[in-house]
Parts: sequence; C-alpha cells; structure tokens
Amino acid sequence: MIDLRSDTVTKPTEAMRRAAYEAEVGDDVYEEDPSVKKLEAEAAATLGKEDALFVTSGTQGNQIAVLTHTKPGNEVILEADSHVFFYEGAAMSALAGVQPRTIVGHRGAMNPDDIEAAVRADDIHFPETGLICLENTHNKAGGAVVPLENMRRVYETAREHGIPIHLDGARLFNAAAASGKSVKAYADWTDTVQICLSKGLGAPVGSIIAGSSSFIRQARKWRKRLGGGLRQVGMIAAPAYIALTEMTERLSDDHEKARLLADGMSCLPGYEAAPVETNIVLVDVTATGMTAAAFVEKLKERGILAVPFGPYVVRFVTHYDVTEQEIYDVLDDIERIG
Amino acid sequence: MIDLRSDTVTKPTEAMRRAAYEAEVGDDVYEEDPSVKKLEAEAAATLGKEDALFVTSGTQGNQIAVLTHTKPGNEVILEADSHVFFYEGAAMSALAGVQPRTIVGHRGAMNPDDIEAAVRADDIHFPETGLICLENTHNKAGGAVVPLENMRRVYETAREHGIPIHLDGARLFNAAAASGKSVKAYADWTDTVQICLSKGLGAPVGSIIAGSSSFIRQARKWRKRLGGGLRQVGMIAAPAYIALTEMTERLSDDHEKARLLADGMSCLPGYEAAPVETNIVLVDVTATGMTAAAFVEKLKERGILAVPFGPYVVRFVTHYDVTEQEIYDVLDDIERIG
Amino acid sequence: MIDLRSDTVTKPTEAMRRAAYEAEVGDDVYEEDPSVKKLEAEAAATLGKEDALFVTSGTQGNQIAVLTHTKPGNEVILEADSHVFFYEGAAMSALAGVQPRTIVGHRGAMNPDDIEAAVRADDIHFPETGLICLENTHNKAGGAVVPLENMRRVYETAREHGIPIHLDGARLFNAAAASGKSVKAYADWTDTVQICLSKGLGAPVGSIIAGSSSFIRQARKWRKRLGGGLRQVGMIAAPAYIALTEMTERLSDDHEKARLLADGMSCLPGYEAAPVETNIVLVDVTATGMTAAAFVEKLKERGILAVPFGPYVVRFVTHYDVTEQEIYDVLDDIERIG
Amino acid sequence: MIDLRSDTVTKPTEAMRRAAYEAEVGDDVYEEDPSVKKLEAEAAATLGKEDALFVTSGTQGNQIAVLTHTKPGNEVILEADSHVFFYEGAAMSALAGVQPRTIVGHRGAMNPDDIEAAVRADDIHFPETGLICLENTHNKAGGAVVPLENMRRVYETAREHGIPIHLDGARLFNAAAASGKSVKAYADWTDTVQICLSKGLGAPVGSIIAGSSSFIRQARKWRKRLGGGLRQVGMIAAPAYIALTEMTERLSDDHEKARLLADGMSCLPGYEAAPVETNIVLVDVTATGMTAAAFVEKLKERGILAVPFGPYVVRFVTHYDVTEQEIYDVLDDIERIG
Repeated sequence: MIDLRSDTVTKPTEAMRRAAYEAEVGDDVYEEDPSVKKLEAEAAATLGKEDALFVTSGTQGNQIAVLTHTKPGNEVILEADSHVFFYEGAAMSALAGVQPRTIVGHRGAMNPDDIEAAVRADDIHFPETGLICLENTHNKAGGAVVPLENMRRVYETAREHGIPIHLDGARLFNAAAASGKSVKAYADWTDTVQICLSKGLGAPVGSIIAGSSSFIRQARKWRKRLGGGLRQVGMIAAPAYIALTEMTERLSDDHEKARLLADGMSCLPGYEAAPVETNIVLVDVTATGMTAAAFVEKLKERGILAVPFGPYVVRFVTHYDVTEQEIYDVLDDIERIG
Repeated sequence: MIDLRSDTVTKPTEAMRRAAYEAEVGDDVYEEDPSVKKLEAEAAATLGKEDALFVTSGTQGNQIAVLTHTKPGNEVILEADSHVFFYEGAAMSALAGVQPRTIVGHRGAMNPDDIEAAVRADDIHFPETGLICLENTHNKAGGAVVPLENMRRVYETAREHGIPIHLDGARLFNAAAASGKSVKAYADWTDTVQICLSKGLGAPVGSIIAGSSSFIRQARKWRKRLGGGLRQVGMIAAPAYIALTEMTERLSDDHEKARLLADGMSCLPGYEAAPVETNIVLVDVTATGMTAAAFVEKLKERGILAVPFGPYVVRFVTHYDVTEQEIYDVLDDIERIG
Repeated sequence: MIDLRSDTVTKPTEAMRRAAYEAEVGDDVYEEDPSVKKLEAEAAATLGKEDALFVTSGTQGNQIAVLTHTKPGNEVILEADSHVFFYEGAAMSALAGVQPRTIVGHRGAMNPDDIEAAVRADDIHFPETGLICLENTHNKAGGAVVPLENMRRVYETAREHGIPIHLDGARLFNAAAASGKSVKAYADWTDTVQICLSKGLGAPVGSIIAGSSSFIRQARKWRKRLGGGLRQVGMIAAPAYIALTEMTERLSDDHEKARLLADGMSCLPGYEAAPVETNIVLVDVTATGMTAAAFVEKLKERGILAVPFGPYVVRFVTHYDVTEQEIYDVLDDIERIG
Repeated sequence: MIDLRSDTVTKPTEAMRRAAYEAEVGDDVYEEDPSVKKLEAEAAATLGKEDALFVTSGTQGNQIAVLTHTKPGNEVILEADSHVFFYEGAAMSALAGVQPRTIVGHRGAMNPDDIEAAVRADDIHFPETGLICLENTHNKAGGAVVPLENMRRVYETAREHGIPIHLDGARLFNAAAASGKSVKAYADWTDTVQICLSKGLGAPVGSIIAGSSSFIRQARKWRKRLGGGLRQVGMIAAPAYIALTEMTERLSDDHEKARLLADGMSCLPGYEAAPVETNIVLVDVTATGMTAAAFVEKLKERGILAVPFGPYVVRFVTHYDVTEQEIYDVLDDIERIG
C-alpha cells in the first residue's frame, strides 16, 4: 500500500524507536520527566516563547489553548474551513462554551478587514470576542501557507482590540520550509502556538503548545482535566525530540514530491490539481465523471490510499514514508484508471 | 419621541393593564396559575402543537429549545444572521455546549441544498448535527418572510437525517399576516416553535415555546434551571393572553406603515430601502454621505429613534404605538435632514 | 384550602395589583423602564451595595451570581442542604461548569474552620476554590437564622484566600425581622446577595441581586443569556417595589404564627417541631406512625396543604395569606387526625 | 532516593522498553494500530466487557465515562473522598456539566441505603441522578478494597432506578490480588470500568475504559474531543500490554511490602498506621508532634519520598521499584527521625 491519506501515518524511524527504548524517564505529573522537559525547552526556544507544554495531539493543544484563553459565552473568530472549527467535534463549544465566528478566507488566510468587522461591539446582545484562531499551513486550503504579512496585519487588528491570537501550527514547519522563514517568525505574530510532531515530522505521538509562562501554567491544569497529564512520558517525548530537532529540514522533500504528484496528475485528462505550496495535493476529479469517493475506491484497488475531501475533491499528502519512485508509480496507476 | 427602534418598545394597552390587575393567579412552580395555563393551552392550539410553555423572553425560549433538543458537542445549523447566532450572547455555546454551523441565506431563507451539504457525516472528527434553527420573519433580513415552501423542503431534508427543527418565530405572526397563511401552517414544518408576545403583539413581557408534550416536560426543567420558573405569573400571562388573542389581526396595519415609510424614504435622494414584507424597514444611507450612526444621531435630534443595523444601514420598526400620521411626520423630518 | 406549602403561594395584594395597573413602563433591555430602575436603586440602597439587578426568580439570581463570580473548573463551597445545591437542578454545574463542595452545617451555618479546611491548595489535581455560597435564613434547616457573627468569620476566612461570597438571601428579610438587625448588616459580610420579593414579601414575581457596579454590569449580560432580559418589566417591578418597601415590617407576624403552630403541634402527641426562628416549621411525625407523605395526604383531605421535607419530616410555612385564626383551625384539624 | 509517593513513579521495565522499540504500529485515528487493538481486546476479555478503549490516563478514562453516560444537569453519586471528585480538577462539572452528590463512605464503600436515599425523585427542582461512580481500591481510604458484596448491592440499587455504574478501577488489580477474586468479578457489577496500567502494573503511560460496544463507540468520540485520539500509539500500547498481561500477579508482593512498612511503623512510638489491605499505607503522625508536611520533609532529608495526605496523615505507596530491603531501610531511617 502507498498511503497518501495523511502525513500522520508516518511510522517512527529507527532512531525514534531507539530513543524510546533508551529514554530517561520520570513522572511528569510531578514534573520530573527529563525527556519531556528537554523537549519542551527546545520547543519553546524554537518557537520564541517563554514556555511550552507537551500534549498528546494537535486537537488537545488547540482545545487547551481555547480553554485557557477564553471564558464561556465568548466568540472565537476563525476561518470557516479551519481544523479547530471543522474537525474537532465541536469541542470548542462542548468544552469551553465558546461560539465560533467563521470567516471565509482566501487560501486559508482571513482578510484582516473581515476580522475587524467581525469583532463584537460592546452590546448587551453580543458575546465578547475572546480569541482569534489561525491555521498555518491551512489543511482544507490544500496546505496553503498563510503569508507572514497577513499574520502581521491580523496581529495588529487583534492588538487594537486586546484579543489574543492562537495559531494552529500543526504543519507550521511546512510553512517555514516552503517560505524559507523560521517557525519563530510566524509564532512572533501570535500569543500561543500549537505544533504537531506526529505529522510530517514523523513522531509517533505528540504536539506542543507554546506561550507565556503564565499561559502554560494555566494550560497545564486544563491538560490535567482533559486527561493529558501523563506519567513516564519520556517514552514518547524522546522520539518527539528527534522529530523536532532532526526532521524539519527534510520537509522540503515532501513538498517536492507533492509538486511532482500535482504536476503529473494535471497532465492527465480529467484531473485538476490546486496550487501546491507544501505537502498537500488537492485534486478535482469532476471532469473524470467520477465522484471523489469512487476515485478513492479505484485507487485503493490499486494499492493507493487517499481521502475524499469534498464530493469531487481528493486529498493526497506526501510524507517521509513515501518515496519519489512511489509517486511515479502512483501516477502510472492513475493513468491506467483513467 | 417617535420610537421606531423596535416593536419591543410597545407599551401595554389599557386592556392588558386591566387584565393584569384582575388576573386570576396561583403559584406556577406548582403549575397552579390558571392564567398561564389558559395562555399555554391557547398558544398550543394556535400553533398546532401538543403543549406550550410560557417563558420570559424570546431568547429564553430559543435557548431552552436548544438545551432540550441537543447534547454538548452537537452542531446546530442556522442562518448566518439569525438572532440565535447573532444576538443571544453566544448562549447556545455557553449553556448548551453546541457549535453553530452558519449558512448564508437569501432574505433569511437557507437553501435546503446548503443544509443538506452541511449535515455532518459519521466521522470521528465531526460533531453530530443535532438541530436546525430557522427564523421567520427574519430580523436581519429586514423582516423577510421565509416562504412556506422553503420551510417544507428544509423539513424534508431534516426528516431524512432525523434532525429536529426549531423555529424562532419571534415575529411569526407578522409572517402569517403578510402571507395570509396561519401560524400553524408554518409551525407544521417544525418540531418546536417560539413566538414572542411582547413584540408587535404588545404584551409587556413574555414568549411561548410549543412542541410535543414530552419536549415541553423536559423544557420545563431547563426553564427552571435558567430561573424562568415564576410564581404568580398570571400577572403577566393575562395581558399576554390578550396579545395572543386580540392583537394579531392588526399587524397588517404595521406592515402598511412600514411600506409607507419605505416608499417615502426611497423617494428622497440618498436613501435606499430594502424590500418591505412586514414591519421592518432597512434603509441604506450610503449615498447620503452619512454613516448609519450619524444619521441615527440626526434623527434623534428631531425626536425620532431608530437603530444602526450595520455601518450604513438603519433599521426602523413600525408597531402599535406609532401612527400613520407619525410616519408622515418622520418622512418630513428626514426630508429636512437630507 | 389553607396553603402552608410555601410563602411563595402568597397572592399579590390589592396595592400590588393597582401598582401593576398604573406602572410607568419602558423597554428594560434598553434600560428605560423607570419602575424597575426605581426598584433596583431602592434595593441597592437597602442592601448597602453599589448596584442591583431585577431577576425573575431566586434561582436565576443565584445562578447569575455563580456564572459571574466563577470560571469553569472552579469549586464552590456551600452548605450540604443549601438551595443552590439541592433545589436548583444542578444548574451551577450545568450552566457554570463548577463543582459544589458541600459542608454539613449546624442549623444552616457552616463552621468557618470547615470552610478553611475545604479551600483548595495550589495543586495540579485540584480545582481552584472560586466562591463561597451562604443561605440565610436557611430553608432546609427550618428557617434558621445564620448568625451575623458566623457570617463575619466566614467573610474573614474568605478574604484571606481572596474568595468572593454570595449570599442566597431569598428569605434574608426574615432573618432581619427575627434578629432585629438590618438586611444591610448581613449583606455587609458578602460580596453579592440575592433577595426574593415573591416569598414572604408577597410580590407576584421577582428577585434582586446586588453587588458592585462592575459585578452587576457582567451579571446583566448573563441575565440576557438566560433569557431574563425583559421588556415592559415595570408591570412586575412596580408591585415588587411595594413588596420591598411596605411588606418587610410585617414578617414578624408570620414568625408569630409559625411559633403558634409549632407550639401547638408539640403539645399534640407524636409531633415534634424543630426550633422555630422565622416562618418555617419543620415537624417530625415519626412518632405518629405516619410517613410524611401519609400525613400530608391526611392534611389535604382536611383542606390543609403542607409539603413532605424528608421521609418523616413535614414543612409548614406561614405567610401573609394565612391568618392566626387559620393556624388555630389547622391545629384543631391535626388534633382530629390523631 | 526511595520513592514511596505513588505507584505511578514506577519506571518501565526492560521488557516494556523493548516492546516499545519493536512495536508494530499504525495510525489509531484510522483504527489501524495493531498493538493498541491487541491491548484493547485483551483488556475487554479480562474485564468481561464487549469492548475497550485505550486512554492516556485514569482521569481521561473517568471523564470520558462521565461524558458518555450523562447529560448536563445530571447529578452523579460518588464517595466524598473519591478521586473523580477530589483529584480531577472539578473536570466532571467543567466538561460534562454534572453535579457531584457526595456520600461519606466507610473505607471507601458507600452504604447502598445512603445511595438509595440520594437518588433524586422526579421533581421540577431536582437534577436527574445520571450515574453512580465507585472507586476500588479506594485511594483516600488507604487502598481499601470495596467488597464485592457491597458492589453487588449498589448494582441492585442502581438497576432499580435505571442508573448506570462506572467504576474507577485505577487500582482494581490490587483489589483482585488482595481478595483473590478476578477483576472481572468486580467489573460484573458495573456498566463501565477504568483501569490504570501505569500505576502498580508499571506501564509508562495509559489506562483502559471498558464497557458495551455502543458505549465505547460514543466514548471514542469524546476521547477525540479531549485530544486523546493518538497516532502510532503502539509505542505505548505495547509496553502497556506487558503491564496488563505479565505484571498483575506480582501486585501481592507490593501488598506484602506495604504490610511490612505499616507493621514496622506501628511498632515505633508516635506512628499509627491505618489497616493495610493493598499497597497503600496511611500513617497518622499526630502523636509525634510533627505535622505531615514536617515529617515528609524529614523523610526527604534522608532520601525517602512520601506525600502529606492530610494535616497529620502521610501516604506511602509500595510498588515494583521498591525492594523489601528498602522498606527495612526506610523503617531504620524513620526510627532515627524519632
């Protein structure tokens, strides 16, 4: 099987497995696990924040951020197709009691004027705007990089109104690899940021949230309430450290493979690939006469896994466990489906 | 002052005051207030539902409906400018823990195909779609009547997926007056409905929610939790009964006055009134060079009250306490402003 | 029927009905109802607080206080039999997401040492103690007056830890009447207080919460979310004003009648009345061989209403609509029951 | 350091580390991780339930159970010192919106009559009793085993009222080891059960919840909302499998060490150990003149870690990483303290 459903499917590398085997561990509920401490310190430094906290998933990191930043009855501004709104089971409303206020963005980036217009005035009928959530790269927008300049302008709008910004940076390293900017450069225009170590970076499990020391202190208690306070977490923090420190450079290879796939498919009749900036390829299959579901089924018969991403759109994600040669094989197979 | 800010400003009539004075009362927490019983029975019959419950406001009625129909982590489909989403302080998320999924409608009516597309599939990442909320007439759409045919199609879509429908019918009697249909005809395409007695119908306080007996039984407990379980409620239920039974016919007078105002303003240079179907007039003042706020200020100087409804849109609402002559006076005044 | 179930059953007086009839009203969502403004100002002054807010019930007032004082995940210390914990449908957890921490009191008063011991230390496993709730007089403790000295000591404990205090003073005027102290003297040892106007004071509907201006500002928005933002509320605020200003002196009559009833019953074999401090009489009927439910049923057959308050305890509440003669009649009837 | 603070401090064994190193893994969000599947199947079989789910902590397992069993506004009956109430940051109220109803137990066991009395009647003022939570062994009661017979009687009471039972069995294997009964025998008197693999069983991370297939299906979505949906979870599920299958027999060694410690301390003047049934030793140090905190400090100076468990009570927990010899060393050191 060539698995292009997501970069989450990457298996831990030999080095990661060895790191788990040898991990120095302690009880992290007592804050005594040296491996997770080392990971958190490295992540905070990399992101340019005072402190960082290991969490078990991107969803957990995002939800802890919402719980820590907001109060029930707040409104949270975020992009209409963002992961926090679309893919997290309405957890922001279920757990934090906040109402999402969605804005349709352009390739994942919200227009700062739209944000300005969406900030609530002081009125007895209105919720208070409590948070702005960004996503970079933006998954549903096909791995689009939200430009630094857009983030800077959103930040200025937010500051005027005293509203904090959280960045869902599950694939922020992909944005950095694509733009040549550092992840810190992006994180600078936010109050808090979440990064996933188990997507393109290949860790078996884990994400990081970073922010001020006071934010992380409160976030730690919300993590405990959600059941994310672990014991000998070094067993997963040690491989995650390798993901953070040794796997970021290679993300541009994934982007190369994604472009290869997109270009190849666009040459075939009936397939129209959206612009590719990182490791996600969205392909419109309308002109083939197949639905996304039918096409995905045909791929599966040939040992290729992808996911329907709308009635006529299919998503492919490239990652560490897929080679350039396999991309060529996939293109050959698709030509035969054809 | 000529107060055109809202039909909520109507003062109780002499008959209503007398009804309060003479009201037969009891302790409604023990379900022993005859006046509220009579009102609830009448409302249930009028709306064609098994049972009905008196609540202290439209917001309370809507929120109780959301609390009773849904579970935390559900998603609720509703129009992007609907009152439940826009004007109720994010209460649906704060109290019921549900996430709004907004659809941009046309004159308040959501396209059933958009609803169909928004219903969530069974996927570990997705919330369950737990409720569809409609609003008729639609306030932000300028008092537009959502057509019966639209409601019927939404109902069919909802039934296919087993999703209940709640109607925010705060101004449902205006829809009925405008269309010549009964309120029951609209309520038939819903599971539950909320109507306000304190808007165009002139009651001092109160709304009704209606639905199945089992729904109302559960709603009663949520009402208690919200603090809406009252004692000698007959003092307000008795005037509300007059609103329900004697004030519905006259709503077409309000619609007439609204059309008069809209037509008059459209004849003046710089003012563009949206189509008027009921008692709400939205006027775009962009071409006057004034903002909505500035125009509202000028109106106030002349003893006329209206509300900004956007940066360049002003809302006027006609009602029982404004005469046709006063509409002419308002038009004269506006002519002098402009 | 002689109705001794609760003082909530009192019917509005002729003066209250007339006040409703003649009430000067406005739209209180716009804060323009003069009658409710007058009531709120009077209540704030009486209670010695900066501001006050009319709410539709004691439950609504208490829940708004919890919502305004706390954050989800907080713990609230309160007496194990208090109304907020026992009789409000778990609303504090359902709406505000806070956990009650109950302390068994003595005649409604919690020992300040027990409170001190229950305040949570700073530990990752613990909720933050966010509020202390008191109740005075205490309903389940048989209308017991919580002594001022106890309230002062609780206040000092709370201050040391920076924890606010809310007083459920649904029957605070009864405490004042019994002790000869002012309601302000009690309210002085609290941050916020709720008083009911529809119990012994006889208003048809309504309660008040009072506190700092900033507290009331936030409380107003929570009231709106719960659906307690009313329109021409003067219709009920005007009679409530009479309750607040003209009906407090007479509460000692109710206390007299309660003592009469308790003393009378204690003279009958099988009935043991708890000490009576205000207008509530708890009678243990164990020695009669009847359950509370059976005894209440027998009373009902003779036209007397009371409520079971435990398997073998019956509650009687005296109020404005029960005369001294009726108490004698009740005693006669009970003697015949045997 | 001899660490007797908790059995959570146990480090993974060589076999567990190797299992992690060699773990067969997949993406568990797609339900494709064979190691976690194997663990869940084994756990379900061991506990006699239809299905099981891996969660990252006992707190997460308990909270998911509460979220899945209840609705906001429910009341949950549980022991006054239980972990779910005392040590989980008020998460049950913060996340699920339910109110704890605490009952003071005897050595962790609630009297079924007290439970019967606490179940709420059908009354507009009352929450619905939605769940009963048990804990076995009971941590705050000093590792006491709640007898099977008590659980059977609680089960019968619960069934009469149609209320589900969740068992916090974080240390259920200790109960089984102490009583000679199987964990299934205990789980049979429950609807759902949570067991910890990272306490006495020594896994680095992880717990299990088990119940009906339909319960687990819903629990899986709540786990996702809490951020407990992991990717290559096999890295921690594989060592956890060893904990579940190879480490349960040896728990009686821990119990032996606990009794040794308790008996030894009781022979020293000033120390009074509570009865020891499993691996927890509670020692009252009142008679030494020291507070718990002071005594713990003195222990620490001598390289021994324990935790204050009340003003004058200290908790010691024995586990895999503490030898019998070390217990003797601890006793020697304590003798020298005084």
